[in-house]
Amino acid sequence: MIVDEQLRLEERPDPAPQGGEVVVAAGYAGINPADLAQLAGRYPAPPGSPPDVPGLEVAGRVVACGGQVRDWQIGDRVFGLVGGGGLADRVVVHERHVVAVPDRLEDEEAAAVPEAFLTAHDAIVTQAGLRPGDVLLVNGASGGVGTAAVQIGVLAGARVFASVRSEDAARRLADFGAEVVGQGDAVARVRSAGGADVVLELVGSPNLSGDLEALATKGRIVIVGTGAGEEGPLSLRALMGRRGRILGTHLRARPLEEKAAAVQAFGHDVLPFLADGRAHGIVDRVFPAEQADEAFEYMARPGKFGKVLLGF
Amino acid sequence: MIVDEQLRLEERPDPAPQGGEVVVAAGYAGINPADLAQLAGRYPAPPGSPPDVPGLEVAGRVVACGGQVRDWQIGDRVFGLVGGGGLADRVVVHERHVVAVPDRLEDEEAAAVPEAFLTAHDAIVTQAGLRPGDVLLVNGASGGVGTAAVQIGVLAGARVFASVRSEDAARRLADFGAEVVGQGDAVARVRSAGGADVVLELVGSPNLSGDLEALATKGRIVIVGTGAGEEGPLSLRALMGRRGRILGTHLRARPLEEKAAAVQAFGHDVLPFLADGRAHGIVDRVFPAEQADEAFEYMARPGKFGKVLLGF
Repeated sequence: MIVDEQLRLEERPDPAPQGGEVVVAAGYAGINPADLAQLAGRYPAPPGSPPDVPGLEVAGRVVACGGQVRDWQIGDRVFGLVGGGGLADRVVVHERHVVAVPDRLEDEEAAAVPEAFLTAHDAIVTQAGLRPGDVLLVNGASGGVGTAAVQIGVLAGARVFASVRSEDAARRLADFGAEVVGQGDAVARVRSAGGADVVLELVGSPNLSGDLEALATKGRIVIVGTGAGEEGPLSLRALMGRRGRILGTHLRARPLEEKAAAVQAFGHDVLPFLADGRAHGIVDRVFPAEQADEAFEYMARPGKFGKVLLGF
Repeated sequence: MIVDEQLRLEERPDPAPQGGEVVVAAGYAGINPADLAQLAGRYPAPPGSPPDVPGLEVAGRVVACGGQVRDWQIGDRVFGLVGGGGLADRVVVHERHVVAVPDRLEDEEAAAVPEAFLTAHDAIVTQAGLRPGDVLLVNGASGGVGTAAVQIGVLAGARVFASVRSEDAARRLADFGAEVVGQGDAVARVRSAGGADVVLELVGSPNLSGDLEALATKGRIVIVGTGAGEEGPLSLRALMGRRGRILGTHLRARPLEEKAAAVQAFGHDVLPFLADGRAHGIVDRVFPAEQADEAFEYMARPGKFGKVLLGF
């Protein structure tokens, strides 16, 4: 999938693996908001990634290994993170940036997992330090990262409040064990539970003052998505009063070693839930790669539940 | 020192120590911005503290011990934190909320240490995780906390930039080993040093966007003072781009065990520098307790270097 102001599908030679890299043959590829931003010209590819092929994740079968690869053999099923180049049926990735796909997961479900679950896990567990008994508020809980965060939060022993707009999403998030709140009652409901130890903010600046109001003493707000607004007023006094923290984070432009650390931590903390069926990769819709334009347009609209995938 | 809209000096019975408490006879007491806010009615005393006697710190000699006190004997010189009641010549304090005053420090210098050094140490080391080799920017470096933070930062192996307005303060901070910057060149100078790993913000919201601009990848901005403004615009996008963190903190209303932990950490990390003369409590001016009104007015004006004390 090539991006230069426009999207088009193009034949290119298969990538060759260097050193510790493997080549993965993928049947599906997840689309992410960052891919939309890259297409719009607002978010150049990170250094070392293909400049014109977006896509931040990979799931598939190893078809070639570099000379220094130690963990994988041809035929292994793997999924994980790439800095770019993920929207393709052959993807080159460092062997420490993928982990084994559990047998339970079909290819389609597996393709819905890596970026969503890694981002959610890194944000709420690694960055914000979610602990059992914590109250977690997920704002914008129906997307890929949101549905992953709700599942991880519940399974990690937190009391999870999920803020969404649609009735259908509310029902499905309640099935995951979340208490569903709307924009109107989120702050009051979370405060009556003692306040949020962690807020995962996937919507943006319009929520910031409510997030602070909902925050428990020493609570952490992790900013992962800003689709509804990138800048807003912050009350430093309220932040001090709560002894709160606001954390900005992203996975995309991290250096190799930090990406590897995030993937391995996901493998340790989250993979067991996916392997035994307590957590699920959530697919909203699959578009044939030839209809990538349509997939990107669909991706930009609200109301999805889980991930949008391209099928090759 | 009694506060009920007005200040007045009043005779009261000496406090009696309970359990693990000691009574300290103090020759001097440090004034803090929170005391001014309390006087202005904007900041009620924390629970369990005398409601009408402000003062957040104590330095002096133990004159009475509760029955469960294990660390101290009558005559020991101690300094540390109280939730309130510090502006008095007899102060009751839990034994784990004080540490021993090094022999080198006269009473006046000792009285300038606790709140300033504890706040600075807790903010930049404990909360923000300052490490050797880090770049530290202290905004508003000439006050009690600022002068302490510059000294601690330099002695902990950081490269310290100190932002101040007065020429005299600039000279004295340079003597501590800081690189002095002004409001105009702070961001550019800090960025050319690789960006700030830690920003200690003692001025307030007008600095927030500059702090973010000056921040290194994974940098932390710790908000301790908001005298110049309590609310300002925050770019979530910039925060995410830097993977930065904004931390709100205060010592005053922390629970007992957290105050004890902060005091003991200060005792471990900072006391050796004060004991051997590499760090100094900085006294700007001492007012007789009878002139507390004047001292509070002086305290509210800019241009001080170090602490304002009352003498009993």
